[in-house]
Amino acid sequence: MEISELGEFGLIDRLTKGLEPVNASTIKGVGDDCAVLRNRDTDILVTTDLLLEGVHFDLTYVPLKHLGYKSAIVNFSDVYAMNGTPKQITVSLGISKRFTVEHIEELFAGMRLACQLYGVDLVGGDTTSSRQGLVISITCIGEAPADKIVSRSGAKDTDLICVSGDLGAAYMGLQLLEREKVASAGQKDFVPKFQGKEYLVERQLKPEARRDIIEELDKAGILPTSMMDISDGLSSELLHICKQSDTGCRIYEDRIPIDYQTAIMAEELGMNLVTAALNGGEDYELLFTVPLHCHESIEKVPGVKVIGHITKPSLGCAMITRDGTEIPLRAQGWNPLAAQPEG
Amino acid sequence: MEISELGEFGLIDRLTKGLEPVNASTIKGVGDDCAVLRNRDTDILVTTDLLLEGVHFDLTYVPLKHLGYKSAIVNFSDVYAMNGTPKQITVSLGISKRFTVEHIEELFAGMRLACQLYGVDLVGGDTTSSRQGLVISITCIGEAPADKIVSRSGAKDTDLICVSGDLGAAYMGLQLLEREKVASAGQKDFVPKFQGKEYLVERQLKPEARRDIIEELDKAGILPTSMMDISDGLSSELLHICKQSDTGCRIYEDRIPIDYQTAIMAEELGMNLVTAALNGGEDYELLFTVPLHCHESIEKVPGVKVIGHITKPSLGCAMITRDGTEIPLRAQGWNPLAAQPEG
Repeated sequence: MEISELGEFGLIDRLTKGLEPVNASTIKGVGDDCAVLRNRDTDILVTTDLLLEGVHFDLTYVPLKHLGYKSAIVNFSDVYAMNGTPKQITVSLGISKRFTVEHIEELFAGMRLACQLYGVDLVGGDTTSSRQGLVISITCIGEAPADKIVSRSGAKDTDLICVSGDLGAAYMGLQLLEREKVASAGQKDFVPKFQGKEYLVERQLKPEARRDIIEELDKAGILPTSMMDISDGLSSELLHICKQSDTGCRIYEDRIPIDYQTAIMAEELGMNLVTAALNGGEDYELLFTVPLHCHESIEKVPGVKVIGHITKPSLGCAMITRDGTEIPLRAQGWNPLAAQPEG
Repeated sequence: MEISELGEFGLIDRLTKGLEPVNASTIKGVGDDCAVLRNRDTDILVTTDLLLEGVHFDLTYVPLKHLGYKSAIVNFSDVYAMNGTPKQITVSLGISKRFTVEHIEELFAGMRLACQLYGVDLVGGDTTSSRQGLVISITCIGEAPADKIVSRSGAKDTDLICVSGDLGAAYMGLQLLEREKVASAGQKDFVPKFQGKEYLVERQLKPEARRDIIEELDKAGILPTSMMDISDGLSSELLHICKQSDTGCRIYEDRIPIDYQTAIMAEELGMNLVTAALNGGEDYELLFTVPLHCHESIEKVPGVKVIGHITKPSLGCAMITRDGTEIPLRAQGWNPLAAQPEG
């Protein structure tokens, strides 16, 4: 059977079917942003990401330092998405011959900067040669009090659906970078046109993990009922939460937070803005649900917007457009196992 | 600067220079078989390995199930090498288009079998497409009581140097598999000649981690002063222990444990047997030191052999040959960052 028939999540479901933990410390395995291991009253969170050159990044326009920074951030984001604090990372690198020591130092400088800013220790890894391109595998270990862990499966009917920041900008940044890459082909001294679109480029190349939101929620005394980070697109992530919580949802098109640079870029490229915001990945914003009674307190948390509510499962998952039409949500997010070149 | 000028350990030293832990839970970072994270009186051990097709394995003769088994085992081995117990793994895969779902299920079957036999839970990972070949990144999390952790840096003058099992067989198995691969080229229905050499093939394709030795040492009331697993060759690993413990060492050629199949294969290939035992990697045996007063009790532990002793650092690291000559130990083990094809 072709792997593309199953897709990433189908393959994972199939491979991990019937896995039952044998260790008392294994609280949660496959299926959330992190695995959860219990050690007395503290939970250890573990998450890992594999980034391959040519699949996840293009070194034509991604500076190595930014790549290092982003590789670390995407893992921190998974730990925050469980309401934890990232504490350690291990970094494994596969390095092909075209990279020098200085290149790898640049990459590491980005990782070390991310670690420094987020208070994370780099504690180990593996370094080897690669025949084709750069391979980056990072595992992040985090901590959280056992009673504060937030998984994907706790959303309840009438809960409010919230997102932090704005959506679609990282995707538009990628489109912009790709456009300028094409325009630059064969030209010496090419100057890419990023003016007025700096935010999009930054969102794509140097995303941040929303530690601030986790801290603000804690300060406001709000413990989300479910949470995850938006790496594959709002639509795909919301379907994960609803599936794992056995609920439906309604979100409102006019509530989805979008930056004006994202809107201008969509216009320029003739793309549907809402599609980009729903399905564009790599924003690393937090998607979470809170009980209805938190309505007033959540409105006061800076950088958070309520975009809809959780429903009974029978109602399915849908978006209400500006003209009142209900359209079903589909997972059109980035599928890393579909439509890749021959290898 | 070319990365091959520095080698793996030189590069790691350079990249991790000046890294100071900021989290109280980070007890030990880069530089041992595992990182050590403290959680009250239990230590969490973390280790990770990156395996790339064409660099670490050749699917012409490595069955996917064996590959999955071995990928898990090499990580368990790192945890045992710190005197810990492996508890959880995460598995990240980069999969190119030529693999079907059934292929990946075979690979996973091997990992799951290893997990089952060693009591380890598979708790997460990442799955993505790869443009070139199979990428396997495994992170293993283990546990140990804080006062039982054995690092590389605790060897003391007069300590006895011990190894488990026998050495060089996995390397000879690789030579045999490579020879049969060449012999099979272009032939249909080729039957490889493994008769009388099954042990070598098994050591290469299906190594085990020495949980039994860890258990026997514990039963005998022996806590090693230093320990690591032999993945890059005895010579290279012993130099690591001596460097990190600031000691020298003497080992005796006639004490190095070698299986008769290894000896026969070396003879057939016209290779120096002791060189193979000193520098051949992937045996995943344990190399450790114990205080001199454990002399009698260590001799009684099945599968363990005393091969020499630790000295003052000024004496350097050397092997005494059968004819009494002292030859300095050199790290000729497998260097994954030297002499790789262009990429």
